Amino acid sequence: MTPPDLRIDSLGTCQFVSPLAADDSPGATVFVDDSHSILLDDVVVQGERIEDRPALELAGPRPRLFFDPALTTLGIVTCGGLCPGLNDVIRGIVMTAWHRYGVRRILGFPYGYRGCTPQCEPIALTPERVADIHEQGGTMLASSRGQQDVAVMAAHLASLGVDVLCVIGGDGTLRGAQALGEATRAAGHPIAVVGIPKTIDNDIEFIDQSFGFETAFSAAMHAIRCAHNEARGAPNGIGLVKLMGRHSGFIACHASLATSHVNFTLIPEVPFDLDGEHGLLAALKRRLDARQHAVIVVAEGAGQSLLKNAGAARDASGNIRLGDIGTFLADRINAHFAANGWEATLKYIDPSYIIRSVPANPADSVFCWRLATNAVHAGMCGKTQLVIGQWHGRFVHVPIAAAIARRKQVDPQGDLWRNVLESTGQPRLSQCTAH
Amino acid sequence: MTPPDLRIDSLGTCQFVSPLAADDSPGATVFVDDSHSILLDDVVVQGERIEDRPALELAGPRPRLFFDPALTTLGIVTCGGLCPGLNDVIRGIVMTAWHRYGVRRILGFPYGYRGCTPQCEPIALTPERVADIHEQGGTMLASSRGQQDVAVMAAHLASLGVDVLCVIGGDGTLRGAQALGEATRAAGHPIAVVGIPKTIDNDIEFIDQSFGFETAFSAAMHAIRCAHNEARGAPNGIGLVKLMGRHSGFIACHASLATSHVNFTLIPEVPFDLDGEHGLLAALKRRLDARQHAVIVVAEGAGQSLLKNAGAARDASGNIRLGDIGTFLADRINAHFAANGWEATLKYIDPSYIIRSVPANPADSVFCWRLATNAVHAGMCGKTQLVIGQWHGRFVHVPIAAAIARRKQVDPQGDLWRNVLESTGQPRLSQCTAH
Amino acid sequence: MTPPDLRIDSLGTCQFVSPLAADDSPGATVFVDDSHSILLDDVVVQGERIEDRPALELAGPRPRLFFDPALTTLGIVTCGGLCPGLNDVIRGIVMTAWHRYGVRRILGFPYGYRGCTPQCEPIALTPERVADIHEQGGTMLASSRGQQDVAVMAAHLASLGVDVLCVIGGDGTLRGAQALGEATRAAGHPIAVVGIPKTIDNDIEFIDQSFGFETAFSAAMHAIRCAHNEARGAPNGIGLVKLMGRHSGFIACHASLATSHVNFTLIPEVPFDLDGEHGLLAALKRRLDARQHAVIVVAEGAGQSLLKNAGAARDASGNIRLGDIGTFLADRINAHFAANGWEATLKYIDPSYIIRSVPANPADSVFCWRLATNAVHAGMCGKTQLVIGQWHGRFVHVPIAAAIARRKQVDPQGDLWRNVLESTGQPRLSQCTAH
Amino acid sequence: MTPPDLRIDSLGTCQFVSPLAADDSPGATVFVDDSHSILLDDVVVQGERIEDRPALELAGPRPRLFFDPALTTLGIVTCGGLCPGLNDVIRGIVMTAWHRYGVRRILGFPYGYRGCTPQCEPIALTPERVADIHEQGGTMLASSRGQQDVAVMAAHLASLGVDVLCVIGGDGTLRGAQALGEATRAAGHPIAVVGIPKTIDNDIEFIDQSFGFETAFSAAMHAIRCAHNEARGAPNGIGLVKLMGRHSGFIACHASLATSHVNFTLIPEVPFDLDGEHGLLAALKRRLDARQHAVIVVAEGAGQSLLKNAGAARDASGNIRLGDIGTFLADRINAHFAANGWEATLKYIDPSYIIRSVPANPADSVFCWRLATNAVHAGMCGKTQLVIGQWHGRFVHVPIAAAIARRKQVDPQGDLWRNVLESTGQPRLSQCTAH
Repeated sequence: MTPPDLRIDSLGTCQFVSPLAADDSPGATVFVDDSHSILLDDVVVQGERIEDRPALELAGPRPRLFFDPALTTLGIVTCGGLCPGLNDVIRGIVMTAWHRYGVRRILGFPYGYRGCTPQCEPIALTPERVADIHEQGGTMLASSRGQQDVAVMAAHLASLGVDVLCVIGGDGTLRGAQALGEATRAAGHPIAVVGIPKTIDNDIEFIDQSFGFETAFSAAMHAIRCAHNEARGAPNGIGLVKLMGRHSGFIACHASLATSHVNFTLIPEVPFDLDGEHGLLAALKRRLDARQHAVIVVAEGAGQSLLKNAGAARDASGNIRLGDIGTFLADRINAHFAANGWEATLKYIDPSYIIRSVPANPADSVFCWRLATNAVHAGMCGKTQLVIGQWHGRFVHVPIAAAIARRKQVDPQGDLWRNVLESTGQPRLSQCTAH
Repeated sequence: MTPPDLRIDSLGTCQFVSPLAADDSPGATVFVDDSHSILLDDVVVQGERIEDRPALELAGPRPRLFFDPALTTLGIVTCGGLCPGLNDVIRGIVMTAWHRYGVRRILGFPYGYRGCTPQCEPIALTPERVADIHEQGGTMLASSRGQQDVAVMAAHLASLGVDVLCVIGGDGTLRGAQALGEATRAAGHPIAVVGIPKTIDNDIEFIDQSFGFETAFSAAMHAIRCAHNEARGAPNGIGLVKLMGRHSGFIACHASLATSHVNFTLIPEVPFDLDGEHGLLAALKRRLDARQHAVIVVAEGAGQSLLKNAGAARDASGNIRLGDIGTFLADRINAHFAANGWEATLKYIDPSYIIRSVPANPADSVFCWRLATNAVHAGMCGKTQLVIGQWHGRFVHVPIAAAIARRKQVDPQGDLWRNVLESTGQPRLSQCTAH
Repeated sequence: MTPPDLRIDSLGTCQFVSPLAADDSPGATVFVDDSHSILLDDVVVQGERIEDRPALELAGPRPRLFFDPALTTLGIVTCGGLCPGLNDVIRGIVMTAWHRYGVRRILGFPYGYRGCTPQCEPIALTPERVADIHEQGGTMLASSRGQQDVAVMAAHLASLGVDVLCVIGGDGTLRGAQALGEATRAAGHPIAVVGIPKTIDNDIEFIDQSFGFETAFSAAMHAIRCAHNEARGAPNGIGLVKLMGRHSGFIACHASLATSHVNFTLIPEVPFDLDGEHGLLAALKRRLDARQHAVIVVAEGAGQSLLKNAGAARDASGNIRLGDIGTFLADRINAHFAANGWEATLKYIDPSYIIRSVPANPADSVFCWRLATNAVHAGMCGKTQLVIGQWHGRFVHVPIAAAIARRKQVDPQGDLWRNVLESTGQPRLSQCTAH
Repeated sequence: MTPPDLRIDSLGTCQFVSPLAADDSPGATVFVDDSHSILLDDVVVQGERIEDRPALELAGPRPRLFFDPALTTLGIVTCGGLCPGLNDVIRGIVMTAWHRYGVRRILGFPYGYRGCTPQCEPIALTPERVADIHEQGGTMLASSRGQQDVAVMAAHLASLGVDVLCVIGGDGTLRGAQALGEATRAAGHPIAVVGIPKTIDNDIEFIDQSFGFETAFSAAMHAIRCAHNEARGAPNGIGLVKLMGRHSGFIACHASLATSHVNFTLIPEVPFDLDGEHGLLAALKRRLDARQHAVIVVAEGAGQSLLKNAGAARDASGNIRLGDIGTFLADRINAHFAANGWEATLKYIDPSYIIRSVPANPADSVFCWRLATNAVHAGMCGKTQLVIGQWHGRFVHVPIAAAIARRKQVDPQGDLWRNVLESTGQPRLSQCTAH
């Protein structure tokens, strides 16, 4: 694979001294040097030369700023579906900009990109206003799906004097952020556009893990535990849980590993057959004969090739509407057992909204705070069209273009999937090899 | 209303001295006197005479037993759907029978009444076997729906030498227990049949509250909180939550009161209109215009008159199959808003299985323990065809016939419903009066 | 016992029509009739006459009010230590007074009774201000211990025009409320003083259960579970947990019943010996020899006779300072095992503040809402010097004098203590009989 | 710093074909190549050559084994204090060894190293025996502190035929494991000794994060939230929470970041003064004057220089007994405020055992499973005297000698501490620079 271009864009020369320099407490004074970066791939094969490998710029405060904090207007917008931690990120941005840099004009744009147009009034954000929002799930700014006209947004943000825009959203949102950053430059009012990638599916590249992902699979685990109790509570009980994961099965894999209870984990990256000796239905029958109960976890994007008409329609955000693999599987399993005169009691659980809207767990709260402070640091230096990520444990800058170039997926040859197979003990469910 | 017959049936004279009498620690030696009972209705109207009012027999240990503990076989069976606390009750029965009375043959019948037939092997239960089961949801004995032939069960239980049968189940199950008790007597092998009423809907009469109910509405509250977060997170967001409650809206009422977030609570006891000036759709529109988001909680048995074809079919337990008011409301609301060109974002949550299968919360664990010990006390005295209930804070014996004679419902003129209206602020949603 | 005087005091004739009458929705229009009351004792002994028994007035809205809602000023104060549910009660009072009665001047007095003096500014409370406070533990009004001069408070409240004062506090606080109500009458500015009894120990008479109690014992259960894990994790491990309960062991009893893990429950109502064949130390040794681990739960007021110098000092609220039975037991157990050369690993847990400051659980949230609405209903009718309680499942008015006349305790002859003994299996630990 | 020696020791040539090779499902067949490793430091400075940097061997299954699985005896021992996840690790080892390799003799040694001597009987572990243990905190094997004679252990393990010993413990335990591995070789019965580092303080080098750490700081967060509620609930309320962290402040830092409520975080790595203009007492007074409440989090190893007599004694494991900084601070703060006649209400919370004994959270459960499987993979290849770690997101082998060479600490110049300062807003509390 050609290495991605990982150079970070910037609005120009940083002419302002950072107010963080004035603070002499330990930690705060250690500015990050732009000449340091993190190796994208740190696996060494004996004898190999590695100094030309691509590397990611470190995130963190710099000694000189592009914007004068006293005159800076910072905007925040949250787009797309709910994800645990949105309020933590908003809160962290406001607190850092206000307390650390002295920024006093912070605008929250309600209802996603719609809030960046004249349709909505922005909300003035202060430390007091955001102090407790992270105790709640959801986003205090609300969100919406769908795109807005980039030129309209650029003009509106210019009229409001926005200098830094923190955009919290998924790949579609980040694509829009990229276009918006370019449009503001073209229009002569350059805005530093800093993304914080929001993907509950954890499917964005160059990001160890996305915020809210851990909270999500933890919440999913409770649904699996319930499915297990239901399965054990009835003759030949089958608990079937559909989890998030449109193109990537990370939530399904982690939630399966977090319990001991899953017997079949089905993810988009690994095709499976329903019928035939190696298919799911036969394997499920063998499991029930042996143990009288079974738990199946299926990611929403798994097994799409089994569904007719899948992939035809798109939603307001332009995402492909997936066929519903959960109800499809439930129907096919019930029909298969009924047709053969075998008893089975299937309980189907689809906990989607109950997962998306919970507050961040403590680990995600810590993570969101750290993402948020680094977003402010980047924006104040005029760095633009980047996202804040964590790579190998360090916070880094990733160009939006690189982050959205391709989707992160579970590697069917990697150790995560191996661990899932070790945990479920499931056999290969397909004649074909993993794609 | 004619007062119900509250006399408790018994297998006969108690000729064995209770082993509890030997224990001289405080509390254990205070036996209950059968001549004491609890007033069914303790509201006094000034000047009224009350000594003829019906009263419930107190539960608890008696000094003399009908069965010789050393020779007693005690059986346990759990029937119907899952409910938080089933394992607590099983555990409490085993612990009390074993440690307090010295009963050594305790049989668990798997898969509900099916386990009381020769189809299944009973499971030998010991304190060690049940020590930690209450940490898990579900039932270690598993359950099933549907009836079994009473004569077959009576003969099978006789062949196993069962003396006391603790039956944990709902009204259908209790009806079966009643028949089973009579059949065993008729067959000359009388079994003391003691019920512990299991109804997640809290709809059994003469029982302050059923076990698992509090855990259920607490779990339901989390779904409502999620619905609220989703509703606030989108333009004109509507969170719609369907909760258990086939004929009685107790879960919907308590879950609504437990949060501040519900704007409309819909229960079977209070009819509502969809259309018209006073209907739900118009009221919902007014709410959204005023506050831009709304949360609706609907009990599964609410609004059945709005559904065509409702009430036709029955499930394996003989329960009427309800029409799905949740998806019906979701469809109607979406259609109504779309037809009028109004924006709205409805998220529908149906958390049923996630509620039924959680472990009991601490309060329900305490309650289950106390129900269980009293069930053993009753059975050892040969009392039969009764359920253990809690009435005005005291544990009592209720004849099965009285307990299942009619269903407990939310009183639309009572203070619980008044409290719900005070909390939601919802208007009257119907032209007709509450039934 | 002489029956307590249960007549409810009132400021005078109710001349205003209740605004609740205008509302025609089900439930709200059912006013409570003062001639109805609840039997204090509803146990019937066969043949007994009962119409002269003491009865408690029902709580709830009345058709006529003493105060004109449009002109009413309602005050709220929280006193003493934290208890789960304080914010729920504050919120429920504000919501009911504002939305149901149309009261527009609601004052929160900060820092307990200190806030009822000129030392502090009252806080204007509105629905918006209190909307989310119940998600947090503690009290938004803050609290303090200690008394204030009643005349000073009466004059200050008069100067603020307070008509109804809702006082949330324990027995000392209620005693002060009684005095305050009398003082305002004597001074010609009668205030309706309505108490909501706050006692995490659940030790107030004529109240089925106090708010926060269930949350407290549920939180305590987690500490016990931890103690159990520690005890099982070490050779001859002993987990010792000190719980709240100055004079009444309800928390210790319920928390013990909620787990299966407690082997010794020690409460103030049941004396125990340390030494001797029947003492705790010998019983503990036998338990360890048999099972290699043990869990002990001790209420803070248990075993005070064992402590020298106990009962001498008093805190700012006038409560007797108890000797610390927890560290005393830990020291004595360690010394006893060391002196005999027996191995033991004792872990001592004192979770007090972690319990007091958690948010109310869902059941307590429901309960707090219902207490709060009834407090407003009582106050608007000019009823005074009463507390809102729940008796046998119904909300009632209890004169403050009756509520604080004596302390509710665990009955060593009752079924709660019997259930604890059945659960722990602990032997009698004393030569003397229970007091 | 001289780079550590990261070569992994091994018992010898692997002559057995791995049974994993027979499995053709995706993932399982991708064996790890010993010539691949992970860069210890992956920060690149522009133009630098990096191929000689130290690198860590990747963990995972190899195609050839040292031990014949059918004849292998695998032992497990847990040492030292409790830590969330111990049961998850035990369970993962048993499941992987049994189901993936076909090992049938798995021995659990009770009570730590004591169980590796003839004093205790080992426990036969099977999948059924460990199926549900991870639902509970603690360790099913129990643990103990203190060392045992290495020669005695080596002889006893040899007599039992142990081939692979999985040791779960902290640095003292790992030092013992190192000695034990060497002794078994010297005695001609070489055992593959594989460590899983257990440190709730997260203070072991070359490990991104230790298992249980995340659960621990999450549990600690709840104590902080309680402290915050107590602090806000009283006049000039101060909540003081002592957390684990003998030499490293990771738990204090993460728990502080996870809430918004902490105003002062005190860790061993950053000295602080009590007195003087820049000291904690003065800063605390300024905070209370400004905001009327404050929350302080102190790691148990912080501020030891302030304590007289600290560092003199040692516990059974040889750890230095720390002076109690928590009660010391509480006393000094109370005395300081009292001496100046300032009101303050300090609540002190020490949640230690309540944190150590909780079950692993879902993320730690996943992590423990993955550590456990990799431990088995390493042991079956005869690799020895290593620990399983996760480095930059990948599972690796670290020589025990390297892992315990020095302690991991919070870098006062690093971004974690900077984030804490950004969150608390605390000033520098010392004249001296951080050590």
